[in-house]
Amino acid sequence: MGYEIVRGFPSTSNNDYQLNVPTILRHAARSYGEVEIASRNLDGSVFRYDYRGCYRRVCRLANALRKLGVGPGDRVGVLDFNTHRFAELFYAISGLGAVLLQINPRVSMEDRAYIINHSGARLICVSDLLIPLIEPISKQLNTVEGYLVITDRAADSLQTQLQPLYAYEELLQGEGEDIQWPMVDEKAACSACYTTGTTGKPKGVYVSHRALYLHTLAVAINLNLTRHDVMMQITPMFHVLGWGAFITAPLVGAKLVFPGMYTLEMANVLVDMLLAEKVTVTCGAPAIFMPMLEYIRKMDPKPDLKGCRMVSGASEPPLAMMKEYWELGKADVIHAYGATETTPLVSINFLKDSLQDLSEEERWDLKRKQGIPVVGIDVKLVDEEGNELPFDGKSVGELYIRGPWVTCSYHEDPRSAEAFTEDGYWKSGDAAVIDPNCYIKIVDRFKDLVKSGGEWISTVDLENAIMAHPAVLEAGVIGIPHPEWEERPLALVVLREEHKGKVSKEDILDFIAPKFAKWQLPDEILFVEEIPKTSVGKIAKRVAREQFGDFYMKK
Amino acid sequence: MGYEIVRGFPSTSNNDYQLNVPTILRHAARSYGEVEIASRNLDGSVFRYDYRGCYRRVCRLANALRKLGVGPGDRVGVLDFNTHRFAELFYAISGLGAVLLQINPRVSMEDRAYIINHSGARLICVSDLLIPLIEPISKQLNTVEGYLVITDRAADSLQTQLQPLYAYEELLQGEGEDIQWPMVDEKAACSACYTTGTTGKPKGVYVSHRALYLHTLAVAINLNLTRHDVMMQITPMFHVLGWGAFITAPLVGAKLVFPGMYTLEMANVLVDMLLAEKVTVTCGAPAIFMPMLEYIRKMDPKPDLKGCRMVSGASEPPLAMMKEYWELGKADVIHAYGATETTPLVSINFLKDSLQDLSEEERWDLKRKQGIPVVGIDVKLVDEEGNELPFDGKSVGELYIRGPWVTCSYHEDPRSAEAFTEDGYWKSGDAAVIDPNCYIKIVDRFKDLVKSGGEWISTVDLENAIMAHPAVLEAGVIGIPHPEWEERPLALVVLREEHKGKVSKEDILDFIAPKFAKWQLPDEILFVEEIPKTSVGKIAKRVAREQFGDFYMKK
Repeated sequence: MGYEIVRGFPSTSNNDYQLNVPTILRHAARSYGEVEIASRNLDGSVFRYDYRGCYRRVCRLANALRKLGVGPGDRVGVLDFNTHRFAELFYAISGLGAVLLQINPRVSMEDRAYIINHSGARLICVSDLLIPLIEPISKQLNTVEGYLVITDRAADSLQTQLQPLYAYEELLQGEGEDIQWPMVDEKAACSACYTTGTTGKPKGVYVSHRALYLHTLAVAINLNLTRHDVMMQITPMFHVLGWGAFITAPLVGAKLVFPGMYTLEMANVLVDMLLAEKVTVTCGAPAIFMPMLEYIRKMDPKPDLKGCRMVSGASEPPLAMMKEYWELGKADVIHAYGATETTPLVSINFLKDSLQDLSEEERWDLKRKQGIPVVGIDVKLVDEEGNELPFDGKSVGELYIRGPWVTCSYHEDPRSAEAFTEDGYWKSGDAAVIDPNCYIKIVDRFKDLVKSGGEWISTVDLENAIMAHPAVLEAGVIGIPHPEWEERPLALVVLREEHKGKVSKEDILDFIAPKFAKWQLPDEILFVEEIPKTSVGKIAKRVAREQFGDFYMKK
Repeated sequence: MGYEIVRGFPSTSNNDYQLNVPTILRHAARSYGEVEIASRNLDGSVFRYDYRGCYRRVCRLANALRKLGVGPGDRVGVLDFNTHRFAELFYAISGLGAVLLQINPRVSMEDRAYIINHSGARLICVSDLLIPLIEPISKQLNTVEGYLVITDRAADSLQTQLQPLYAYEELLQGEGEDIQWPMVDEKAACSACYTTGTTGKPKGVYVSHRALYLHTLAVAINLNLTRHDVMMQITPMFHVLGWGAFITAPLVGAKLVFPGMYTLEMANVLVDMLLAEKVTVTCGAPAIFMPMLEYIRKMDPKPDLKGCRMVSGASEPPLAMMKEYWELGKADVIHAYGATETTPLVSINFLKDSLQDLSEEERWDLKRKQGIPVVGIDVKLVDEEGNELPFDGKSVGELYIRGPWVTCSYHEDPRSAEAFTEDGYWKSGDAAVIDPNCYIKIVDRFKDLVKSGGEWISTVDLENAIMAHPAVLEAGVIGIPHPEWEERPLALVVLREEHKGKVSKEDILDFIAPKFAKWQLPDEILFVEEIPKTSVGKIAKRVAREQFGDFYMKK
């Protein structure tokens, strides 16, 4: 690190007591042992136990894993849905001093094999439904010595070539609850998550016990969670541990709800469970909150979601979605910001008491911001030359993030050198402004910003404005070289079938003009048949720039 | 420590980012900069600023202290009331990597000199009103090189022999706000508090940045504090940093209220300020909550304290007091348990959702317990032979406490050897039972328990029962050797003047009999003129045992 640690005077505190995440469950089993956990099975029935029962099974599981040879430092892959067994595996694996590798079912087979091999996992735990995502690559998995299938069934009834094979409940049977947990170095990894960018191989973020423990405390405080809350684990646990709702709930003694296997088409199941279990807090992304809203819209009578806080990550939640949740069910969508590299909580949106005089529309507008950085996290805005910028609501810079639960390298990856500063900041790649009240607003990806005559223009703002035009199916804006202004924005627009040929450049520009300064408007609008996309459906701006980059220069 | 730390697999998290308590204020100044701090001056007026303003003054103060030679590892004594300047000193001193030594105005001159010398403090910061508590011992203070008077006035207008002399506001004038804070080793001490027992010299607890930081997070979570709260710092900051309300409030962005100088006779001032500033959370002890209640009782109309949580430490809050706060003002007195050695939070009392069916009287009775241990803290009950006892609500053992904010030695003190276990538990000296719901109930000091025929009898329970008799002025119960039962309880009773000679042993025993098993009743009740006391007014049970110890043996 690029900072010196000053020694000071010795304390008498027990500083050697390590912050180990699994102690959170152990303490919950003691202090809130009777609090319920509800977990939806594949057949739709709900399995129920409590923190005491969960902890006992975790002890048995850890004893079983030990017998399979899992010990301190080992990496164990887990590929499962949002189930109580995923949580048990997390507590048992990390409790033994091993590392739970989160395996994402949504990445390509190639990337999945890369991730497992790169981590050096010795054991893979896989839901019986997800075996087809492992079986085809099993021959490439150089370090894997066995497979534990997460299932109710017995090992010999499973149809698979994976070898050697163990079955979850079978393994637990006959194991005792007595266990001596090691005190694990808090700087050791407890879980690993690989982040997939638009280019290159996934990058490994290995979160320490200490980081996750402190993050969990921060989440509890910043979501104002109490033992009266009921938390539902909607964000997938295979990605950034699903924001760790299943770790935060036991910390505060809140009831915990696992929805099990679900797809975007099963939003009704999530809503029904949310209502049946009286959920008060959940987290997710617009991608799942939108279909949930779609289902709620059709419900009659409308459900009462009053007091339910829906923490929305990933991207800025659409204003219309936030408003409709409020209007239909009095549910409060709260935007929070973070990334795999930040465990993920960086900032959360709330209305300051000092801003109570804002109009209703101003309040809604404020709710779209990424929010205020939580205590414990350092943020700064940095320009292209590395200068720090003021929090004036105007200066656009790349957001740098540092803190005890922020990663400061990628696991065995040369790309670490360019992604982090010497003094421990992660360069988020996001271009942001921060206003004097300290609300962060992400305006674009830093590399996608258009630098026009020394001023920044956000391509995201232009895209959102153009896409609001009724004739537009989709739009992408890129910054490209310009002989006079260094860069200027260029808009690529796909019109809806019935509007093709009937809408002009001027129609579009007139439509968006009220929202922008004149110099921010694109010089040209190209009507195209399609816009280049990445594998996950985002606009491939790098490809678009390659394709259209000389448009203004050759004019 | 008596445990091995297991290494595990390396993480990529920023584990070198040190938990430094002053960053809490720095972050608050950024994220909640506009939130108010109200501090009562000696003349009754209220000084107001906000976290941004507080942080700026802390920066200037730190620059001034640096010029006085204060640096990493130095100890700086502070003797002041509950003022914003105490808080500023705490943040500036610990921010520099130095240690704030809490100087208690209530201890004897001799003990005060011992504490300062034992700590090796270089600078003493003292309220102008409290100079008389330092001046008489200044010649004995071997390591002190200067005195900073906490005052509005100029140094040359102060009447004192202390030399060299600096004045607080004078010192701040002309100092700039620019400062480079060091990153201080989180294991270094940020503050020191000396605990005074009934015998021997005070013992030094030097709390680390890490311990206090984690404690602050735990307090915020377990008191369910939010930015909508208003916290008032009633517990004296010169003892266990007053439970650190002034550190917890900025952590969550809550408004903070300092009552300044007050005495037990000024309870009205506290109540008036609590109402004027709309306080929602405070902490204190029955010793101050009782006179506050006395004042509220006389108010007409009664104040509305609805939603106000009054966290009561030190000793078990009297049931009548808790009920009256509730009946008069709907204020909720919440018992919490801890000690200097535990920073202090160990456990807090709340009604579990699973116990909602309790009758009203059962609920009140439950509120007298010391509560449920907070997540992060290990507790166990240990008998005289060192065996661990079950949490069955019956087994009485000494309460052992361990955790990241529990001390595991006293600073340069040979008494550490007997007070702590090898694996980091503090032997609290309290005898307790813990029920299956994990509520801790302190029944006595462990050494005062009576061991009769292999069963424990609580002297505290007997005393409370006897003192409820209308003829009794005070009562003390001790366990003394008995030829048949090993030990038996003996009660010493002082009758009220008008009842002397008119009340018999049988009257007392009949009165308390319904509350005890027969074998728990004292064999003898001695009516005496006075009961031996310690310097702070507690019953000196050791002295009483010396005086009456052979009573049953010689019979």
